[in-house]
Amino acid sequence: MTVPAPNAKVAALVLAADMAGTFLFAIEGALAAIHGRLDLLGIMVLSFATALGGGVARDLLIGAVPPNAIRDWRYPVIAFAGGGLTFLALPLVQRIPPEAIIVLDAAGLALFAVAGAEKALAFGINPFVAILLGTITAVGGGTLRDVLLAHVPSVLRIDVYASAAMFGAAVVVAGRRIGFSPRTAGLAGGLGCFVLRLVSVWQHWNLPRAF
Amino acid sequence: MTVPAPNAKVAALVLAADMAGTFLFAIEGALAAIHGRLDLLGIMVLSFATALGGGVARDLLIGAVPPNAIRDWRYPVIAFAGGGLTFLALPLVQRIPPEAIIVLDAAGLALFAVAGAEKALAFGINPFVAILLGTITAVGGGTLRDVLLAHVPSVLRIDVYASAAMFGAAVVVAGRRIGFSPRTAGLAGGLGCFVLRLVSVWQHWNLPRAF
Amino acid sequence: MTVPAPNAKVAALVLAADMAGTFLFAIEGALAAIHGRLDLLGIMVLSFATALGGGVARDLLIGAVPPNAIRDWRYPVIAFAGGGLTFLALPLVQRIPPEAIIVLDAAGLALFAVAGAEKALAFGINPFVAILLGTITAVGGGTLRDVLLAHVPSVLRIDVYASAAMFGAAVVVAGRRIGFSPRTAGLAGGLGCFVLRLVSVWQHWNLPRAF
Repeated sequence: MTVPAPNAKVAALVLAADMAGTFLFAIEGALAAIHGRLDLLGIMVLSFATALGGGVARDLLIGAVPPNAIRDWRYPVIAFAGGGLTFLALPLVQRIPPEAIIVLDAAGLALFAVAGAEKALAFGINPFVAILLGTITAVGGGTLRDVLLAHVPSVLRIDVYASAAMFGAAVVVAGRRIGFSPRTAGLAGGLGCFVLRLVSVWQHWNLPRAF
Repeated sequence: MTVPAPNAKVAALVLAADMAGTFLFAIEGALAAIHGRLDLLGIMVLSFATALGGGVARDLLIGAVPPNAIRDWRYPVIAFAGGGLTFLALPLVQRIPPEAIIVLDAAGLALFAVAGAEKALAFGINPFVAILLGTITAVGGGTLRDVLLAHVPSVLRIDVYASAAMFGAAVVVAGRRIGFSPRTAGLAGGLGCFVLRLVSVWQHWNLPRAF
Repeated sequence: MTVPAPNAKVAALVLAADMAGTFLFAIEGALAAIHGRLDLLGIMVLSFATALGGGVARDLLIGAVPPNAIRDWRYPVIAFAGGGLTFLALPLVQRIPPEAIIVLDAAGLALFAVAGAEKALAFGINPFVAILLGTITAVGGGTLRDVLLAHVPSVLRIDVYASAAMFGAAVVVAGRRIGFSPRTAGLAGGLGCFVLRLVSVWQHWNLPRAF
């Protein structure tokens, strides 16, 4: 491929964060499909779209084609595994309390925000735009899922969701700027996003509205 | 262009399958637009999106930019011709029995599944991912059409639609693996997709649901 | 970047038209978000999507990756500035009469149609396809905005909207063909789109329907 080879440590970090986020979001996509009474194929499509839509958008935008989700067979396998396991173990998955789903979703959001921001920086993208790309990576899959289900994307309705991803990505970018290693910056940004998202749910924080 | 030059025979096969599918799907897009009471421009937009959306997604994902639908003027011309003919000959098109539409759609699905899988393999994509790309090529245009009409995509609701495309693409990939020529593998995969789709409609086959 | 370097004058023209259109469409995206009762983040997302969606689609399709909206930090800054100003100055923005909004929107449409067609030609795209790309640039952002709000895109419902963009792009392409400078062709195409759009609103022009 003609893409520049980013630092190997960053690549390993992006890979690990991406794959963990992929699995968590695939489960969420499958639950949304089951909730919408879709069949097994629909479950698989939504697992795939939710888990990989954000990363595909990021890779197309930074010019890393084919996107990792296509170049590396492990991504679709992990997405389909998440969807298939949810389908097979539905009675078990449905006993997961909603609070745990929110925690898992916040973890996926944090992982993707970090992976997106780190990868954008590694491709030489402007720091301000790298924050945007981290946010798009984090919320892109869920947005695609909601569009496919003909809903207004929850990212547009839920307070402090995309903003938490944006905060995490900004911490990563700022951390790298002041000399943190990719790992330290990623850890700080991921924790920042995760904690901000959970505290905002717990405290019912809202963003200002125009009216 | 900087894309690798795939085998000329494969290219000719992909081209023929792509163009035939483009024409069939353009007619379907136009019918959906007329059904939604859109004007002539809306008909053209939906013909274009339905006919070329899947191929554009495939080409963006495998890094074949500009996509064929943009690089080769014959694709948009065929798509608009399908839309324009449907508009002009509407009384005739409306007398086509629904069974014939299902058969034509199954043919378009099979042509695109084959074209997508063959082109992905020619670009050196992993075989498992090539099956996915064949499926995306086949169902992408119809999904875009439904999203633009603010419907839940029929691919998520119709049983054995995307699965038929996936089956056809899998036959192509498996056929190439065991040494079939692109043409033989394409014929087998196309027939497989076409027959599976029609038998599933005729026999009311369903995929399992979670509940 | 590996993209060919188009003529510097064309680049300056595309840049100016793109940035002016970006600001106008960002305001419209923000108004749509406020109308949909979204919070500040939702306003920013819709400003960004409306303002930059068309240009991102054009750049991905012609292979100009990363798209300008990502490569050049001024684009997202202008989009967010348009969204933020609309949010802060809402009482003022809401006193803008609807007629002025239609005029501003027609101006944005014309600017993007010209920028899209000129850039496609500069990248060596076939003239017929360059007209399509001008149209996609002009209506892509509004379409993405409507899809995110789960509406049928207004481009499919409003008569003489995409057609005005297509007309302006066609004038640009024809003008360049017969030897006009980028600036003269752009001026003629932009004026053509702008006037056609406004006259069609004023005269209630409609495109033919199938029934």
